[in-house]
Amino acid sequence: MANAVIRFRVDIGAELGIGPGKIALLEQIGESGSLSQAARALGMSYRRAWQLLASLNACLQEPVTHAQKGGQHGGGSSLTPFGRQLIRAYRAFDAETQRRGARAFRAVGAKVRRTRRARGAVAAASGLPLSER
Amino acid sequence: MANAVIRFRVDIGAELGIGPGKIALLEQIGESGSLSQAARALGMSYRRAWQLLASLNACLQEPVTHAQKGGQHGGGSSLTPFGRQLIRAYRAFDAETQRRGARAFRAVGAKVRRTRRARGAVAAASGLPLSER
Repeated sequence: MANAVIRFRVDIGAELGIGPGKIALLEQIGESGSLSQAARALGMSYRRAWQLLASLNACLQEPVTHAQKGGQHGGGSSLTPFGRQLIRAYRAFDAETQRRGARAFRAVGAKVRRTRRARGAVAAASGLPLSER
Repeated sequence: MANAVIRFRVDIGAELGIGPGKIALLEQIGESGSLSQAARALGMSYRRAWQLLASLNACLQEPVTHAQKGGQHGGGSSLTPFGRQLIRAYRAFDAETQRRGARAFRAVGAKVRRTRRARGAVAAASGLPLSER
Protein backbone atom coordinates (compact mmCIF):
# COMPACT_ATOMS: atom_id res chain seq x y z
CA MET A 1 0.00 0.00 0.00
CA ALA A 2 1.60 3.23 -1.15
CA ASN A 3 0.04 6.67 -1.03
CA ALA A 4 -0.38 8.76 -4.17
CA VAL A 5 1.35 12.13 -4.32
CA ILE A 6 0.20 14.55 -7.01
CA ARG A 7 2.93 16.64 -8.65
CA PHE A 8 1.37 19.56 -10.46
CA ARG A 9 1.81 22.89 -12.12
CA VAL A 10 -0.85 25.48 -12.90
CA ASP A 11 -0.74 26.93 -16.41
CA ILE A 12 -2.77 30.08 -16.93
CA GLY A 13 -2.98 31.43 -20.44
CA ALA A 14 -0.12 30.81 -22.83
CA GLU A 15 2.64 32.38 -20.76
CA LEU A 16 2.13 31.82 -17.07
CA GLY A 17 3.14 28.60 -15.33
CA ILE A 18 2.97 28.42 -11.54
CA GLY A 19 4.55 25.45 -9.80
CA PRO A 20 6.09 24.53 -6.46
CA GLY A 21 9.34 26.40 -7.24
CA LYS A 22 7.73 29.81 -7.68
CA ILE A 23 5.44 29.34 -4.71
CA ALA A 24 8.32 28.28 -2.45
CA LEU A 25 10.23 31.35 -3.62
CA LEU A 26 7.33 33.68 -2.78
CA GLU A 27 6.97 32.05 0.62
CA GLN A 28 10.67 32.55 1.33
CA ILE A 29 10.49 36.18 0.23
CA GLY A 30 7.59 36.60 2.67
CA GLU A 31 9.66 35.10 5.46
CA SER A 32 13.00 36.76 4.82
CA GLY A 33 11.98 40.02 3.15
CA SER A 34 14.81 39.53 0.68
CA LEU A 35 15.10 37.92 -2.73
CA SER A 36 18.73 36.96 -2.24
CA GLN A 37 18.05 35.36 1.14
CA ALA A 38 15.05 33.55 -0.35
CA ALA A 39 17.23 32.22 -3.16
CA ARG A 40 19.87 31.07 -0.70
CA ALA A 41 17.31 29.30 1.50
CA LEU A 42 16.16 27.35 -1.56
CA GLY A 43 19.65 26.54 -2.83
CA MET A 44 18.87 28.54 -5.95
CA SER A 45 21.09 31.06 -7.72
CA TYR A 46 20.13 34.71 -7.31
CA ARG A 47 19.88 34.93 -11.10
CA ARG A 48 17.39 32.09 -11.30
CA ALA A 49 15.30 33.44 -8.42
CA TRP A 50 15.21 36.82 -10.11
CA GLN A 51 14.11 35.21 -13.39
CA LEU A 52 11.31 33.26 -11.72
CA LEU A 53 10.02 36.39 -10.06
CA ALA A 54 10.37 38.54 -13.17
CA SER A 55 8.43 36.10 -15.32
CA LEU A 56 5.67 35.96 -12.71
CA ASN A 57 5.38 39.75 -12.39
CA ALA A 58 5.62 40.20 -16.16
CA CYS A 59 2.60 37.98 -16.72
CA LEU A 60 0.36 39.66 -14.20
CA GLN A 61 -1.35 43.05 -14.20
CA GLU A 62 -0.66 43.33 -10.49
CA PRO A 63 2.76 42.50 -9.01
CA VAL A 64 3.21 39.71 -6.43
CA THR A 65 6.20 41.44 -4.84
CA HIS A 66 7.49 44.96 -4.24
CA ALA A 67 11.15 45.88 -4.31
CA GLN A 68 12.17 48.27 -1.52
CA LYS A 69 14.84 50.97 -1.13
CA GLY A 70 17.82 50.29 -3.37
CA GLY A 71 16.00 48.00 -5.78
CA GLN A 72 15.89 44.24 -5.72
CA HIS A 73 19.67 43.87 -5.67
CA GLY A 74 20.44 46.27 -2.85
CA GLY A 75 17.25 46.49 -0.81
CA GLY A 76 14.54 44.14 0.28
CA SER A 77 11.56 42.50 -1.39
CA SER A 78 8.15 41.99 0.13
CA LEU A 79 4.95 40.29 -0.88
CA THR A 80 1.99 42.33 -2.04
CA PRO A 81 -1.51 41.37 -0.85
CA PHE A 82 -1.99 39.78 -4.28
CA GLY A 83 1.20 37.75 -3.80
CA ARG A 84 -0.13 36.46 -0.48
CA GLN A 85 -3.47 35.67 -2.14
CA LEU A 86 -1.67 33.63 -4.83
CA ILE A 87 0.22 31.61 -2.20
CA ARG A 88 -2.99 30.92 -0.25
CA ALA A 89 -4.87 29.84 -3.39
CA TYR A 90 -2.03 27.52 -4.41
CA ARG A 91 -1.57 25.94 -0.97
CA ALA A 92 -5.30 25.38 -0.46
CA PHE A 93 -5.57 23.80 -3.91
CA ASP A 94 -2.48 21.69 -3.22
CA ALA A 95 -3.84 20.33 0.08
CA GLU A 96 -7.20 19.50 -1.46
CA THR A 97 -5.55 17.88 -4.49
CA GLN A 98 -3.37 15.65 -2.31
CA ARG A 99 -6.39 14.55 -0.27
CA ARG A 100 -8.43 13.77 -3.37
CA GLY A 101 -5.46 12.07 -5.05
CA ALA A 102 -4.85 9.75 -2.10
CA ARG A 103 -8.50 8.73 -2.27
CA ALA A 104 -8.74 8.45 -6.06
CA PHE A 105 -5.67 6.22 -6.38
CA ARG A 106 -6.04 4.13 -3.24
CA ALA A 107 -6.99 1.00 -5.21
CA VAL A 108 -3.96 1.45 -7.49
CA GLY A 109 -1.65 2.12 -4.54
CA ALA A 110 -2.80 -1.13 -2.93
CA LYS A 111 -1.33 -2.99 -5.89
CA VAL A 112 2.05 -1.31 -6.02
CA ARG A 113 4.86 -3.80 -5.75
CA ARG A 114 7.70 -2.95 -3.42
CA THR A 115 10.38 -5.50 -4.12
CA ARG A 116 13.87 -5.45 -5.45
CA ARG A 117 12.46 -7.12 -8.56
CA ALA A 118 10.20 -4.16 -9.28
CA ARG A 119 13.03 -1.69 -8.84
CA GLY A 120 15.26 -3.73 -11.11
CA ALA A 121 12.59 -4.01 -13.79
CA VAL A 122 11.90 -0.31 -13.71
CA ALA A 123 15.57 0.52 -13.96
CA ALA A 124 15.94 -1.88 -16.87
CA ALA A 125 12.85 -0.61 -18.64
CA SER A 126 13.77 2.99 -18.53
CA GLY A 127 16.44 5.38 -19.28
CA LEU A 128 13.35 7.56 -19.24
CA PRO A 129 13.12 10.80 -17.30
CA LEU A 130 10.52 10.42 -14.53
CA SER A 131 8.21 12.88 -16.24
CA GLU A 132 7.80 10.51 -19.20
CA ARG A 133 7.18 7.33 -17.32
CA MET B 1 -9.26 36.39 -18.10
CA ALA B 2 -7.44 33.14 -18.72
CA ASN B 3 -8.47 29.73 -17.47
CA ALA B 4 -6.14 27.61 -15.34
CA VAL B 5 -5.07 24.24 -16.67
CA ILE B 6 -3.54 21.81 -14.18
CA ARG B 7 -0.65 19.67 -15.49
CA PHE B 8 -0.07 16.78 -13.17
CA ARG B 9 1.50 13.43 -12.57
CA VAL B 10 0.61 10.85 -9.94
CA ASP B 11 3.56 9.39 -8.02
CA ILE B 12 2.80 6.26 -6.03
CA GLY B 13 5.59 4.90 -3.86
CA ALA B 14 9.17 5.50 -4.88
CA GLU B 15 9.00 3.90 -8.33
CA LEU B 16 5.66 4.46 -10.00
CA GLY B 17 4.84 7.67 -11.84
CA ILE B 18 1.62 7.89 -13.84
CA GLY B 19 1.11 10.85 -16.13
CA PRO B 20 -0.75 11.76 -19.29
CA GLY B 21 1.70 9.85 -21.51
CA LYS B 22 1.10 6.46 -19.93
CA ILE B 23 -2.64 6.97 -19.71
CA ALA B 24 -2.85 8.02 -23.37
CA LEU B 25 -0.85 4.92 -24.26
CA LEU B 26 -3.20 2.64 -22.34
CA GLU B 27 -6.21 4.29 -23.98
CA GLN B 28 -4.71 3.76 -27.43
CA ILE B 29 -3.93 0.12 -26.64
CA GLY B 30 -7.57 -0.25 -25.61
CA GLU B 31 -8.71 1.25 -28.90
CA SER B 32 -6.31 -0.45 -31.28
CA GLY B 33 -5.54 -3.73 -29.49
CA SER B 34 -1.88 -3.27 -30.42
CA LEU B 35 1.10 -1.67 -28.75
CA SER B 36 2.77 -0.75 -32.04
CA GLN B 37 -0.41 0.87 -33.39
CA ALA B 38 -0.85 2.69 -30.09
CA ALA B 39 2.72 4.00 -30.31
CA ARG B 40 2.18 5.14 -33.89
CA ALA B 41 -1.06 6.94 -33.02
CA LEU B 42 0.84 8.91 -30.36
CA GLY B 43 3.87 9.67 -32.53
CA MET B 44 5.99 7.66 -30.10
CA SER B 45 8.67 5.10 -30.91
CA TYR B 46 7.76 1.46 -30.32
CA ARG B 47 10.72 1.22 -27.98
CA ARG B 48 9.52 4.10 -25.84
CA ALA B 49 5.96 2.77 -25.73
CA TRP B 50 7.28 -0.63 -24.70
CA GLN B 51 9.36 0.98 -21.93
CA LEU B 52 6.43 2.97 -20.58
CA LEU B 53 4.30 -0.14 -20.45
CA ALA B 54 7.04 -2.32 -18.96
CA SER B 55 7.74 0.14 -16.16
CA LEU B 56 4.03 0.32 -15.37
CA ASN B 57 3.57 -3.45 -15.28
CA ALA B 58 6.81 -3.95 -13.33
CA CYS B 59 5.59 -1.70 -10.53
CA LEU B 60 2.20 -3.33 -10.10
CA GLN B 61 1.21 -6.69 -8.68
CA GLU B 62 -1.47 -6.97 -11.34
CA PRO B 63 -0.75 -6.15 -15.00
CA VAL B 64 -2.59 -3.38 -16.84
CA THR B 65 -2.23 -5.13 -20.21
CA HIS B 66 -2.04 -8.65 -21.59
CA ALA B 67 0.10 -9.62 -24.55
CA GLN B 68 -1.66 -11.97 -26.97
CA LYS B 69 -0.47 -14.69 -29.36
CA GLY B 70 3.03 -14.02 -30.59
CA GLY B 71 4.00 -11.72 -27.75
CA GLN B 72 3.91 -7.99 -27.70
CA HIS B 73 6.08 -7.66 -30.79
CA GLY B 74 4.17 -10.03 -33.06
CA GLY B 75 0.67 -10.25 -31.58
CA GLY B 76 -1.75 -7.87 -29.95
CA SER B 77 -2.05 -6.23 -26.55
CA SER B 78 -5.22 -5.66 -24.62
CA LEU B 79 -6.18 -3.93 -21.41
CA THR B 80 -6.92 -5.96 -18.31
CA PRO B 81 -9.88 -4.96 -16.09
CA PHE B 82 -7.30 -3.38 -13.77
CA GLY B 83 -5.88 -1.40 -16.69
CA ARG B 84 -9.36 -0.07 -17.46
CA GLN B 85 -9.85 0.76 -13.79
CA LEU B 86 -6.61 2.76 -13.77
CA ILE B 87 -7.69 4.77 -16.82
CA ARG B 88 -11.09 5.51 -15.27
CA ALA B 89 -9.55 6.59 -11.96
CA TYR B 90 -7.09 8.88 -13.74
CA ARG B 91 -9.65 10.46 -16.07
CA ALA B 92 -12.16 11.07 -13.28
CA PHE B 93 -9.45 12.62 -11.12
CA ASP B 94 -8.26 14.71 -14.07
CA ALA B 95 -11.73 16.10 -14.83
CA GLU B 96 -12.36 16.97 -11.17
CA THR B 97 -8.90 18.54 -10.85
CA GLN B 98 -9.46 20.77 -13.90
CA ARG B 99 -12.86 21.90 -12.56
CA ARG B 100 -11.42 22.70 -9.15
CA GLY B 101 -8.32 24.33 -10.63
CA ALA B 102 -10.37 26.67 -12.81
CA ARG B 103 -12.30 27.76 -9.72
CA ALA B 104 -9.29 28.00 -7.39
CA PHE B 105 -7.27 30.20 -9.74
CA ARG B 106 -10.06 32.34 -11.23
CA ALA B 107 -8.92 35.45 -9.34
CA VAL B 108 -5.35 34.95 -10.55
CA GLY B 109 -6.48 34.27 -14.13
CA ALA B 110 -8.42 37.53 -14.10
CA LYS B 111 -5.12 39.37 -13.66
CA VAL B 112 -3.14 37.64 -16.37
CA ARG B 113 -1.74 40.11 -18.84
CA ARG B 114 -2.08 39.27 -22.48
CA THR B 115 0.00 41.79 -24.29
CA ARG B 116 3.09 41.76 -26.42
CA ARG B 117 4.85 43.41 -23.48
CA ALA B 118 4.16 40.44 -21.21
CA ARG B 119 5.38 37.98 -23.81
CA GLY B 120 8.52 40.00 -24.39
CA ALA B 121 9.24 40.28 -20.68
CA VAL B 122 8.76 36.57 -20.16
CA ALA B 123 11.03 35.74 -23.05
CA ALA B 124 13.65 38.13 -21.70
CA ALA B 125 13.37 36.88 -18.16
CA SER B 126 13.80 33.28 -18.96
CA GLY B 127 15.92 30.85 -20.69
CA LEU B 128 14.08 28.69 -18.19
CA PRO B 129 12.28 25.50 -19.06
CA LEU B 130 8.53 25.95 -18.51
CA SER B 131 8.55 23.54 -15.59
CA GLU B 132 10.80 25.86 -13.61
CA ARG B 133 8.96 29.08 -14.21
